[in-house]
Formats: sequence, C-alpha cells, structure tokens
Amino acid sequence: MTAPTTPQFHVYDTTLRDGAQQEGMNLSVADKLAIAPLLDELGVGFIEGGWPGAVPKDTEFFKRAAKELDLRNAELAAFGSTRKPGVRAVDDPQVRALVDSEAPVVAIVAKHDLRHAERALRTTGEENIAMIADTVAFLVREGRRVVVDAEHFFDGYRFDADYTRAAVVAGFEAGAEVVALCDTNGGMVPTWVADIVHELRGVVGPDAILGMHAHNDSGCAVANTLAAVEAGCSHIQGTVNGYGERTGNADLLAIVANLELKYGRSVLASGDGGLADLTRIAHAISEITNISPFARSPYVGASAFAHKAGLHASAIKVDPDLYQHIDPALVGNDMRMLVSDMAGRASIELKGRELGFDLAGRSELLGRVTDRVKDAEANGYTYEAADASFELLLVEEIDGERPQYFRVESWRTIVERSGSRGTPATAEATVKLHAGGERHVSTGEGNGPVNALDHALRQALIKVYPELESFELIDFKVRILDSMHGTDAVTRVLIETSDGQTAWSTVGVGPNLLEASWEALTDSAIWGLRNRGVAPR
Amino acid sequence: MTAPTTPQFHVYDTTLRDGAQQEGMNLSVADKLAIAPLLDELGVGFIEGGWPGAVPKDTEFFKRAAKELDLRNAELAAFGSTRKPGVRAVDDPQVRALVDSEAPVVAIVAKHDLRHAERALRTTGEENIAMIADTVAFLVREGRRVVVDAEHFFDGYRFDADYTRAAVVAGFEAGAEVVALCDTNGGMVPTWVADIVHELRGVVGPDAILGMHAHNDSGCAVANTLAAVEAGCSHIQGTVNGYGERTGNADLLAIVANLELKYGRSVLASGDGGLADLTRIAHAISEITNISPFARSPYVGASAFAHKAGLHASAIKVDPDLYQHIDPALVGNDMRMLVSDMAGRASIELKGRELGFDLAGRSELLGRVTDRVKDAEANGYTYEAADASFELLLVEEIDGERPQYFRVESWRTIVERSGSRGTPATAEATVKLHAGGERHVSTGEGNGPVNALDHALRQALIKVYPELESFELIDFKVRILDSMHGTDAVTRVLIETSDGQTAWSTVGVGPNLLEASWEALTDSAIWGLRNRGVAPR
Repeated sequence: MTAPTTPQFHVYDTTLRDGAQQEGMNLSVADKLAIAPLLDELGVGFIEGGWPGAVPKDTEFFKRAAKELDLRNAELAAFGSTRKPGVRAVDDPQVRALVDSEAPVVAIVAKHDLRHAERALRTTGEENIAMIADTVAFLVREGRRVVVDAEHFFDGYRFDADYTRAAVVAGFEAGAEVVALCDTNGGMVPTWVADIVHELRGVVGPDAILGMHAHNDSGCAVANTLAAVEAGCSHIQGTVNGYGERTGNADLLAIVANLELKYGRSVLASGDGGLADLTRIAHAISEITNISPFARSPYVGASAFAHKAGLHASAIKVDPDLYQHIDPALVGNDMRMLVSDMAGRASIELKGRELGFDLAGRSELLGRVTDRVKDAEANGYTYEAADASFELLLVEEIDGERPQYFRVESWRTIVERSGSRGTPATAEATVKLHAGGERHVSTGEGNGPVNALDHALRQALIKVYPELESFELIDFKVRILDSMHGTDAVTRVLIETSDGQTAWSTVGVGPNLLEASWEALTDSAIWGLRNRGVAPR
Repeated sequence: MTAPTTPQFHVYDTTLRDGAQQEGMNLSVADKLAIAPLLDELGVGFIEGGWPGAVPKDTEFFKRAAKELDLRNAELAAFGSTRKPGVRAVDDPQVRALVDSEAPVVAIVAKHDLRHAERALRTTGEENIAMIADTVAFLVREGRRVVVDAEHFFDGYRFDADYTRAAVVAGFEAGAEVVALCDTNGGMVPTWVADIVHELRGVVGPDAILGMHAHNDSGCAVANTLAAVEAGCSHIQGTVNGYGERTGNADLLAIVANLELKYGRSVLASGDGGLADLTRIAHAISEITNISPFARSPYVGASAFAHKAGLHASAIKVDPDLYQHIDPALVGNDMRMLVSDMAGRASIELKGRELGFDLAGRSELLGRVTDRVKDAEANGYTYEAADASFELLLVEEIDGERPQYFRVESWRTIVERSGSRGTPATAEATVKLHAGGERHVSTGEGNGPVNALDHALRQALIKVYPELESFELIDFKVRILDSMHGTDAVTRVLIETSDGQTAWSTVGVGPNLLEASWEALTDSAIWGLRNRGVAPR
C-alpha cells in the first residue's frame, strides 16, 4: 500500500479540544483565541481548536479564528467524527460542519477497536471500516488534509489485531495523511507501544505517517510517546501542561523538550526560539485556563530546577551542570536555590532591559529591586503576567517614589440585595481623592463591586486626566492563593487594560479581594498615564 | 563475581527521606511516625526514614520508631553516606551514627560518576572506590543489610562506563545486598535506562540484585523504573505521590500499580489488600504532608476515573470496562461521571444514581433535570465540581422546591479603606433573614467581603440551627467566565465546606462576585443541614 508523505515532523496540539476535557476546565471562545497565538509562538505545527458543529462555541471559535488569528507556524485543525452508520458522509450534518469550519486540517475520530464499533456504535465491523473510508475520502475530496484519530487503537490491537490493522489501512487508502494511534484509555506502557508500532509499521510500509496520542493513566504518557517516536511515529499529539480528562493527555511540552534536547531532533517550527520560551508560554496558558501551574512539572515547573541547599550547595555553585539534567535557560526556566539567593538578579536585569531600563552597571539598585521582587513574590505577587506593575516597582526604586498622579483619601464599596433569590444585587462605590490641586469625590455603580470601583475611580480622575477616557478594562482574573484557608486566604487579582493601542497588566494582592482589585486598578491608571507621557497634574 | 541474593522483589519507599526534599515540605518526627504505618499497611518492603546523625530529627525518628512502631511488612532503613576521604569507616562519626540508629537496613549514597568524585568530593577515583568498599564492609560486619545508592550512576556511566562499572562491582564485592542505580538528575529516558542496565547485568552476573532510583525531570520516572525492571532490576525506589526535590521522585504508587496490574507481578508484601487501599493511603499521606493531592495522579487522583464526555455516557453506562484501563476498585478509586455542558440524559441518570436517586424509570423528570442543567451551564454554572448544588437542583425538581430552612430578606456588604496604600481595608456584612419563626439580623466582619458574609449568615442561623457550628469553609475559588469583558464579565464561585466528616461543594454564578458567593454560601448551608437529616425549623 502507499500513503501520502511529508518530510516534516508533526507537533499536533490538542489543548483546546482534548485538553479542555479536563475536570474543572471550561474555556470560552475568548480563552481559545488567546491561547492559540501562544501555541503558534511555541512553534507547534497544528492547533486542534475544537469540534465545530457539535459544540456551538467551537463553531464560533473557527469562525472568529479565521478572521482574527494570524498564525505563522501552525495550521488550524477541526476535530469531528466519522459519519454515522448507514448515511453517506456528504449527508451527515456533523461531517458537513467540519468542512464548513474552513479549517485546512480535519481530524476525525474513528473506532479502531471492534468491541467499540459493535457495542458503542451498535454497528458491524465492516460498516465501521466503510465509515472511516467514506469520511476520509469525502474530506480529502473537499480539499482537507485528514488526520484519522484511531480511537482505542492499542486496546483494539491487543483484542483483535487483524481488525484494527484493517481499519488503519482503510484510512490510509482513502487518503488520510496521518493515522494517529490513540491510547484512549491511557493504560499502555512503553514496551507494549513499541512492539505494536513496530508490527504495524510492517503492514503500512515505511512512508505512512503514523502518529501517537497518549493519555497518562499509567503515568507513562510522555514515555509512551517517546517509544512511539523511536518506533517510527513522526506525528505526536498532546496538550500544554498535560491538561486533559482523567489523568490528562501526554504533556506536549515535556515531549517536545525531550525530543529537542535528549534526542537532538528539531521538531518545533519556531526553531530554538520557541523552546527558550517554553516556561513562559506554559505559565501564560495557565493564567488563561486559570488552573494553577503544577510546581513539579518537568522542564517548566516552578520547582523543576529548584535545589534545597545544604549538602550540595557549594558544589552546585561551582559546577551547576553536574546537578541538572539540562541548562534551564534552554527552556526559559531558572535554577533556584531554595535557601540561598543566587537566582533572580540576572533575570531581573534582563527584564529591565526589555522594558528599557539599563540596570547592568547598577549593582546596588539591582540588588534592591531583586530583594523587593522576592519579598513581593513570597507574599503572593507575580510579575510574570503583570509587566506594568513590575515597571512601576522599578520606577519607584529608581526615582525613590511612584509617580504621584493622585492621592487617595478613602474608598468604599457597598453591595446589597433586598429580597429573595433572583432579585439582582446592586453595587456602588465611592472614591475620595486629591488630584490637580483639588479634592474629588465620586460615586460609581456597576454590576459588581470591582466594576463600581473602576467607574468611581475613573470619574474622580477624568476632569484632571481626560486621557483616561480611552482606557478600558479588558480582563480581570482572580486567584485564591492558599486554598486551605477558605475565605481567609490571600487573593491575587490581575487586571488588563487597553487604550486601544497598547494593553498592559497590573497585579494586586491582599486578604481582601477588593483591596487587591483596588491596587491593580490604581496601578493600571498610573502606568497608563505615565506611558502616554502625561505628567502628574 | 558473586553477590548475595534474595528471591523477593524489593519495594523500597523513600518518602520520608528523599520525598521530604520537596520544596515546601517539612515533616516532623510525629508526621514521619504517622506516615510509616500507612506505608507498612500498603505493603512496601522497606521504609527509608531519614539520615540519622546528619539530621537531628531523623536521629530522633529512629529512636522513637524502634519503640513505637509495630511494622508487619516493612524493614526500616537508615540513609547515610560513604566515609569521608582519608579516614577509616569505623572512625567516621557519620557512618557510626548509621549503626547507632539500629536500623536493620542501611542505604549509603556513593558517588558513581568520576566527575563528582573529583570535583564535589575533591578526591581521586581510587579513593572514592575505597570509600565505597570500606563503608559497605564495615556496615556488613556490623550486621546490617546494605543498599548502595549509586549516585549519578547513569550520568557517570555515559561519561566513563569503566569507572562506574568498577564502583558498582566494588560495592557488591564488599557485601552490598543491593546496588540501586540512581538517575539523580532525572534526565534519562526509558531506552537509555534499558540499554545501560542490560550492559551492566553482563558485568555483575545474573544473581546480583540491581535497583532503580528515578527522578522525574524528563517526565519519565515511572517508565524509566519499569524499563529497569524489564531489564532485570528487582529493587525499586520511589515516593508516595511522587514527592521529591525538583520534579519529584518516581511515583511509587503508580509503579506498584503498573507492576501488579499490567505486568501481573505480585510485589507488595500485603498481597492484594494493600493495592485495594492505594487511593485511601495516598490521600491519608497527603493529609499528613499537608500537600493538596494532585487530581490528575495516575490510579489515585480524584480525576483518575472521572469522565466528562457526554458523547460516551450512554456507552459507559452499558460497558464501563471499555472506557477505563483498569477497574478503579482494584486501587480503591471510583469511576465518576462529570455533569458537563456536553451532558446528556445518560450521564445525569448515572450521576443521580451515584448520589442515591433512581431516575431510571422517570423519563419526564430526567428530561426536566437535563434541561435545567444545560440551561444553567449555558449561564456559567458548572456542576462538575459542585455535587451538592447539583443534588439541590435534583431535590428541587423532585419535590417541587428547595428545602426551606430560611428565607432571606436582604444582605449588604460594606468594604472601605481610609488612607493611602498600605492602610488595611475593613469589611463587614449584614444579613436579615427569617428562620424558626423569627426574624434574625446579624452583622459579621471579615478579612474580605465573602468572609464577612459567611460570618454574618452563620451568626444569623446558629440559634435556630446549632448544627452549623461544625461547618467550616475550606476552599473558595473564583473564575471570571468571559474574560474579554473585564469587570462586566460573569463570575463563578465554587465553595467547599466541611463538617469534619464530609466535605461538599457548591456553586454560584452572577455578574456580581458577591451575589455569586452568597448563592454558593447559602446552598452550602442548606445541603449541609439536609445531609445531617435536620428538618427545616
């Protein structure tokens, strides 16, 4: 048999589709549109965006993605299913919707375990194979590159290898570019994967592009994917941070880092640049999914290169490479000594340079800024996603104070509801402050207390600083930091503001959510005014 | 060469020693004394308790363990180091302390990478090998079973195989029972491990007991350990929940479950009993370490057997084994159906059954509940992580109304700050409601508005429902749902409450964060009272 072939290695991300199946994850269209450019920047070759037709917000995603996204490295892929038993592919509205999504790549999930065809689809093995062949052929005729997701491939192979092989061959013969072998239930171990892929290779020939789609139920998803690549798979599927149903999908970041750094294979379309941003991209996506990053994640975790000082401390200082499997800078992470304070200055110097501040010769200043950042981070701040707040901190250390655009006397919010469930609550806020030589008192209303505070602050300042007119709050995120203390915990608020040209992010932290929000709101106004070159009035 | 041999497979737990190196973990002697019996119950063969002599609380642990612990399956192991360069083992106080600990098993860490011997120890390769041989021989003469932890074995082998092999042989010839091959920096992948262990086996002969000690820096710790076992290692080291420095040690629970269930090897001294308690033991140890369990952990995670896809729900109902890699009961875990926005009638029927409601014959009711769930989820609710709110919805549809424990007249929160940055804000809440035939008005204070509302609600109800005394808010999560609309967005609040015995979760949604919090707080009180069998008063 013959199969189409491309010379490249496929890194196929399914964070937005299979990753979103994770318990507790619920991505909006806006979330997906924000994640896709980060994946593209990393340099994946394919971004599977969802199931248009079956999930209304995925239909909308593909519509908006076509207009709004400008991807350099990745192709968008729509996920769907083979046609239903007993209908023509062209007449199946679910298949039709895949074409209508206008995604250039379509992945169709297709049963490759005879038991699933018979018991879940309640059809025959022959009809299931016809469903694969018809659906692939139809999509290829419609000009799509087709990936077959061979669902339950490994379990099916172990149950009835002949049937499963026939299904794979049918997909290739109908024109599929890739057949991705799915360990849907996640129970494989690497040697099982290697043996089966080797056997299958003998059936499909050397040129067929086989893929691997692993889940982590045995704790082996990364290793199973590496085993598949060693056995000749050249298309890998996975998710950022290993998101996914049950124990998660294979962690695409760890796989890519292993392939690039351990196997010496260049698999990212972005070249080395993407890999050097691995940690930043992993954390930025965590912010969007609002799922706390796992500190022990390979390569990108906050603890991944953290050493408890003591026994090895001096040896590590002299010869760090003897104590780490790779140089953390290769994946944009840092070695941290948990007791001593070796880390930090270099990255803060770099960050300063990025923002236009040359700290290179100013060792004492750099030391003070590093100390303040460490202190703040110990208290729950994070500057990773709040450049504007970091810049204000830097300005404060350089100039000795923050720019004094206004002086706050007091603020207050009142939220109340009269009546039972269903009656809406009202929120108002009053802000008293001094600016432009006068005292300003204003009250704002809003859907909730933060919204009301934002309105009141803006109203109080607008006469003195009409530039604020164009500022708009475009994102607001809340994270509870120590979840073991219930509502006593510390709250971190991240706010993103835009003036139509630039967008900037600020952070506030405190035991009181509204206090944290207030801090981020005022930082946002100050940074925005300073950035426009407005002097305090 | 010859080596001592035992017929058994060694499961060697190092949670209390290497696991305790994890960032943020700090185990007291009491913690260790509480964890050890759980490990013994699981059926591990060895419990490495710490480094007596070097760490004072570990010295105390071994002293108290000898008196207080009654272990059935496990031997205690003390961890230490080879003697220093240039002194006799008998004269090295650190080695002496290992004997004094009276642990029947001693593990000594010994350099197996020539670079580490020369650069970290600043000695010669020959002296390093003499240090291994002398220390092992001394401990064996003192009647101890000796495990050599061959530190940096794999990196050393790849750098200078001859030297590393000579070090391993020296350990066995001096009388070590086991040489455990350590991937100290955690950078190996399974095929590298397999190749090296195979090669080494040719050197040490078929009877030498080789062990594997893996770290997860490549995301392959479990698979690397399995590869080592396939290549003939019969001693495995790891930690519960994969605790450990950086990315953690190999997760002993996943390895043991894989060996028992995938490889069909009986490796636990407790027989099947221990495996069936795997989930309970993993969670009990999390309670002691005070590190939140990772929901996506293989086998034991809360999400490990949780299914979201509405698509498959009907098939899962018919044939659960087609959708899970093992029967979760084998490891003491449970299948859970998550009610999600792809939910259909089948998954809601299953969820109802899980909560004790038989909806099988009640098609009209099932239809109504499904419609309400879909409607609610479209508005931002999620019942995946809020079983208690889902149950109240179900009860409302069955009985025609929610249990009427109280009727809310109004509530109000005030948060205010006078003064500049740094002055703390104050929060108070007033609740007016009717319960037990009376009107109750109460005001609560708190760190923030939700905390204040919780206090006020509790105070207003406590006279009528003293059962609320034991309820405690243990988790509070906030998610902004459509993050592109800034503070106008919809907010979802998830609250977890405990009464010391049971924990339950509720959800609230609204444009106003405090309104959403109020909904989740009141649902929580209602569910808790109903669950205790309290009737509305």
